[in-house]
Amino acid sequence: MTERIRRGRQAPSERTRVKRLGDRGAYDAETINAILDAGLLAHVGYVIDGAPYVTPTAHWREGDYVYWHGSSASRMLRSLEGGVAACIAVSHLDGLVLARSAFHHSLNYRSVMAFGLAEKVEDPAHKEAALRAFTDRIAPGRWDALRPVTAQELKATSVLRLKLDEASAKVRTGMPSDDEADIDWPVWAGILPLHVASGPATADAHVPGGMAVPANILGFRHG
Amino acid sequence: MTERIRRGRQAPSERTRVKRLGDRGAYDAETINAILDAGLLAHVGYVIDGAPYVTPTAHWREGDYVYWHGSSASRMLRSLEGGVAACIAVSHLDGLVLARSAFHHSLNYRSVMAFGLAEKVEDPAHKEAALRAFTDRIAPGRWDALRPVTAQELKATSVLRLKLDEASAKVRTGMPSDDEADIDWPVWAGILPLHVASGPATADAHVPGGMAVPANILGFRHG
Repeated sequence: MTERIRRGRQAPSERTRVKRLGDRGAYDAETINAILDAGLLAHVGYVIDGAPYVTPTAHWREGDYVYWHGSSASRMLRSLEGGVAACIAVSHLDGLVLARSAFHHSLNYRSVMAFGLAEKVEDPAHKEAALRAFTDRIAPGRWDALRPVTAQELKATSVLRLKLDEASAKVRTGMPSDDEADIDWPVWAGILPLHVASGPATADAHVPGGMAVPANILGFRHG
Repeated sequence: MTERIRRGRQAPSERTRVKRLGDRGAYDAETINAILDAGLLAHVGYVIDGAPYVTPTAHWREGDYVYWHGSSASRMLRSLEGGVAACIAVSHLDGLVLARSAFHHSLNYRSVMAFGLAEKVEDPAHKEAALRAFTDRIAPGRWDALRPVTAQELKATSVLRLKLDEASAKVRTGMPSDDEADIDWPVWAGILPLHVASGPATADAHVPGGMAVPANILGFRHG
């Protein structure tokens, strides 16, 4: 095996136990938090009238909670704020794994799946602190540079969170795992790493000509 | 408004109608297919015992169907192959939108959400053709260069598909949409584009030293 596997403690529940290729599973907060913090885009699953819905949304983490937000009028948020079950997934695609057989082709990735009841953040001070954390996760210090948030804007924004006490990570890294008998098959095999790159930052038409792109934006990293 | 909006025909169903910021919605096959084809990683939502699950998985498209696959032992595939309801989401994060107020911060993105009943591909010839299409979507012509697939491998692989007759796209592009009153607020505003970059391709230890990385792998594009 040429894969590097991260191992954690036991799964916190049966449904979070990584069943397929279980040696790719991890359950420690360090691994889970790192995967959540490296990304901006989660997929939130929920059920309406028995049917599954998956909505992409920006997320951030503070302590043992993953947060997301949106318009108070959003279907997803209104469905979830009543404390119904949610599943939130955050995934990073790290590369193509090109083997000598189609069967052993794979992807390198890091993903987290967390289950729980979404909880609406009602307290305005908590809500504002959470939105500050989200803004400053994107560009540290930016919140204080912005036109201050208004009470009406806070009211129009719903903030939800889910406690990370039923979460698992799944990680694949490294080279293909070909069958021994295929090792000499005459085809190129290996990995094509993928990563998220940024830039160039582009100011809108109202930014004064002499204003440089701030370092906290140029320093943004994803993945 | 500085956003460029793509408009399509009407939503195919009430639940696919983009409700929040409806002018970001599109329902035409050209837009939907382009977003699906630009990606490799979908998030599939399904329901087990009333609870939502979201599983990241590789996907590909052929005609009016989106396909995915995995081990015949997979919980997700076994849950879905009985023809239960699924929701599949494919999302591309295209950039940060940095406005003068926190409220108008946003992300540029392209996403597709499709609902339907997952259908298991049972016919071995169809299954093999689908897997060939997937492999060749990653690297055109690679299927024929590989050690041929075996009957056992085909049997161990489940292929599912979902017809794209209840799908919608949501796209945001362009600059922030600040309030008029904020236009002169002294903070940088604009976009930080994000994209998926690849490389360098790295051969595994069994590739002969003189074998170059094939052009069909170097040509891989995502997003």
